[in-house]
Formats: sequence, C-alpha cells, structure tokens
Amino acid sequence: MNGTDKYAIIVAGGKGLRMGGDIPKQFMLLAERPVLMHTIQAFYDYDPNIRIILVLPREQKKYWENLCAEHSFSIPHQTVSGGETRFHSVKNALFLINGEWLTGHNLPSTLHLSPRTFHRVPLIGIHDGVRPLVDKELIGKVYAQADSDGVACPAIPVTDSMRKMTDIRTTIPADRSKYFLVQTPQVFKADILFEAYRQDYDLRFTDDVSVVEALGIYRPAMVEGSRENIKITTPTDLIIAQSLIKSHHS
Amino acid sequence: MNGTDKYAIIVAGGKGLRMGGDIPKQFMLLAERPVLMHTIQAFYDYDPNIRIILVLPREQKKYWENLCAEHSFSIPHQTVSGGETRFHSVKNALFLINGEWLTGHNLPSTLHLSPRTFHRVPLIGIHDGVRPLVDKELIGKVYAQADSDGVACPAIPVTDSMRKMTDIRTTIPADRSKYFLVQTPQVFKADILFEAYRQDYDLRFTDDVSVVEALGIYRPAMVEGSRENIKITTPTDLIIAQSLIKSHHS
Repeated sequence: MNGTDKYAIIVAGGKGLRMGGDIPKQFMLLAERPVLMHTIQAFYDYDPNIRIILVLPREQKKYWENLCAEHSFSIPHQTVSGGETRFHSVKNALFLINGEWLTGHNLPSTLHLSPRTFHRVPLIGIHDGVRPLVDKELIGKVYAQADSDGVACPAIPVTDSMRKMTDIRTTIPADRSKYFLVQTPQVFKADILFEAYRQDYDLRFTDDVSVVEALGIYRPAMVEGSRENIKITTPTDLIIAQSLIKSHHS
Repeated sequence: MNGTDKYAIIVAGGKGLRMGGDIPKQFMLLAERPVLMHTIQAFYDYDPNIRIILVLPREQKKYWENLCAEHSFSIPHQTVSGGETRFHSVKNALFLINGEWLTGHNLPSTLHLSPRTFHRVPLIGIHDGVRPLVDKELIGKVYAQADSDGVACPAIPVTDSMRKMTDIRTTIPADRSKYFLVQTPQVFKADILFEAYRQDYDLRFTDDVSVVEALGIYRPAMVEGSRENIKITTPTDLIIAQSLIKSHHS
C-alpha cells in the first residue's frame, strides 16, 4: 500500500441539538481539545501524508478556524461545506477530490501532494467526526483491507440480547450472533466510490458502504472494529470517551 | 404495586476468563467495591424489602462471603449455586422461591419476609450481576410494567449502522430502526415465570424473556432502558463503568 494516495473524509454534520447544549458535539472538549482535533490527529498519526478533508456545516467553518487558532492546531486539512444529508456532504468532498484526481491539480500546498502519486487509484476513507477514539492501528487495518478488496469497514459483534420489531406493538427475539454493529472509517478504492455516488440519493443510504452496495456489484470486507471506537452522540458518551482517553495515558 | 411481594434474582455466572485475569468480573473493584455489591445495592435502594437471591458458581461462594465480611457488606441476600447454563442457574433460584411461595415458609429472618405478603402473586426480576450501573428508577419502571403486563424488559435502540450475516462470507445491511438491544432486569409475574421454567432447556433460550416467549402465550412489554446500564464483559467496560460512577458523584 506504500505509495498509494490516501484520502480521509471526516464528516462532522452534527448541529449538536441532541446534546441539549448550544455547542455541536464535534466541538466539545475532550482532554482539553475539541473532539474533531482528536479525530484528525488519529488519521495524521496513521499517515502524515494522508490528505484530510473535513466536512462541516457552512455556518460552523469560521468557528472551527477560530478553534484551530486558539488550540494552535496545525495538522493540514481542507474544509468543505456539508450538504442536506450525509450523502450530500460526502458528495461535496468527493467533488473536490475528483477534480483534483482528474486534473492532477494540487490542493493547497500545505497538503503535501505530489502529482505522481496519482498513478494508482487512491483509497478514500470516510469517517464520523464524532468518533475521536479511533486509533491508527484500526485505521491502518481498514485501509489495507480496502486496498486488497476494494471496499472495507470495521464492525463489532453485538453483545446484548436483541429483539426485532415486527409491527408497532410486537417484537421478536433476533439471533444476535448473526448481527454486527458497523463503525467507521469505511474505506473504498476511489473509482468504486465515485461510481456509487453518481447514483441518486435514496433513503436507504444509512452509511457509505450502503451507497456502494446499492450498485449491486460490491460487498464490503469486514475488519474487526474496536469497542473503544464509540460515536459521541450523548453527554454520557462524552464522559465515557473522557475516561477511555485518560486510561490510555495513565 | 405496594404490598406486592418482590424478588430479585441476580445471576453472576461469570468465570472471568474473558477479562484475561484470574478474578471473575463480578468481583472486580468498581469505586472500591466489588461489582456485585453495586448491583445488589441498586435493588435494595429501589425497595429495601425486596428479597434478593444471588446465584453464584458453587466454588465462588466462600470467596464472596469473605468479600462481604471484608467490605462490611450487610444488605440481606441469599446465595444459591449456579447451574450449567443461565437457564439452570435461574431455575435453581426459582426452586428456592417456589418452595417458599407454596409453603409460606420464611427465608432466613434477615430477609424480612412476613407470610401474609403471599396473598398476591409475587413479581420476580432477573438481573445480570455484571450490570452494576442499573439504577432504582429503571428497576422501578420495569417492575411496575410487569405488574400490569405480566412480562417486561428494558431495551434501548441501536445507534450504529447494523449488518446481518447471511452466510459465512456475506453480510447485508439491516434496518437498525427495527432492532432493540435488550437489557435486564427482566421482570415477570411469578406464575408465568414458573410455567416457563418447567419447559425443557433449549439452545434458543438466550435470556429469560425468551424462555417465557417459548410458551407461545406471552409477549414482553418493553420499557425504555438506560445507555448507562452496561454489561461489564471486557476491561474497557470496567473503565467506562468507573467513569460513569465518578460522574454521578461529582
């Protein structure tokens, strides 16, 4: 995989309403830094040459710039405005990559791109901005798997008993051993991902792998995820993340 | 529900192998007390008259007694030996309750039983010993629901994308909005539970609700569970539990 051009699209669409506060969850402080900086750091730690594209709601861009200045955050990345849904947000980032890939034009020089890396099909990972505890080992495993299989995502087994709702009043037991919880990053060979995102938006697109699957050609290779790679959606999640970070540094 | 006799069967079958250490996870320290003491405390906080039956592997009983002495743990409870599987463990506890219920004989006087409480069908809750973060509010909700509906359990929605394995190499997307993760306590009117546990053991019995459902008569009422009511099965879970407890006391 050496020499393969790699991108990471980090999607941070959260308006933060579910946290009950005014500050979107991607900006909340975790070990003294905004959640998103941990996320970006993980990808940088995996590969300092990876090109990071951060998708943010348009109205949060200025706020983010100020945060970066305030925290002296210097990992190179480019921001792109989010869209109506996650699908549209990712599409905006792909539009940027696509133009660059086809024309060989550089992104701003801070991104360390040299045109010759375009001789191979790039790998594009898409990651939830609010999964700051992903680590470079997991990121590395998923990119490597996508390099050989085209489409890869991390997943973990379900550990609680599970039930399935069959109608509004009825649930039946579901065999948990058959189910997996899907995490990010979800990683793709660029040509497959571009083909997928040329489709019209569909409500069944719940994550990026599902967009690719809708083509009816590709199945994702599953990589063992990490229980620590949690998605921060509630105040409880933030407390949990805080303590997991602390435990790594003690 | 006042005056209704209530039992809590707390099942602690864990041999602790998955923790990588020698000490079973139900005995690991959480905020300076073994996990199981937190669990028992929650049921006592809900109702100091609830009768608590702790199911432990036979070889751990002495160890538990020593822990109780060491921690001056004085909440009244009775221990029963575990069986081959969870089904058999619960059955051992029911055998004790059943004898008492039919004969009106008291458990040891520390359990505060007065025979007249047997005029109504008791409620029996069954709870994982390694879910120490359950709180009295959730316990109260599930017992109340079972009092009106006969069978009740807490459950929470799935927040990650989910995939279903269709064969050893293939997974397909599953609609997460249709699935719920089931927690404990699962609570039952005693007559229903006894009827269910007269069935022969079946591999499909993954939790107590599934044993009752196999009768083909009852469906559980679902109560909204709590994200904090986690099951401690890995070292990461223990770190998470630790921080959640701390956050409640700060």
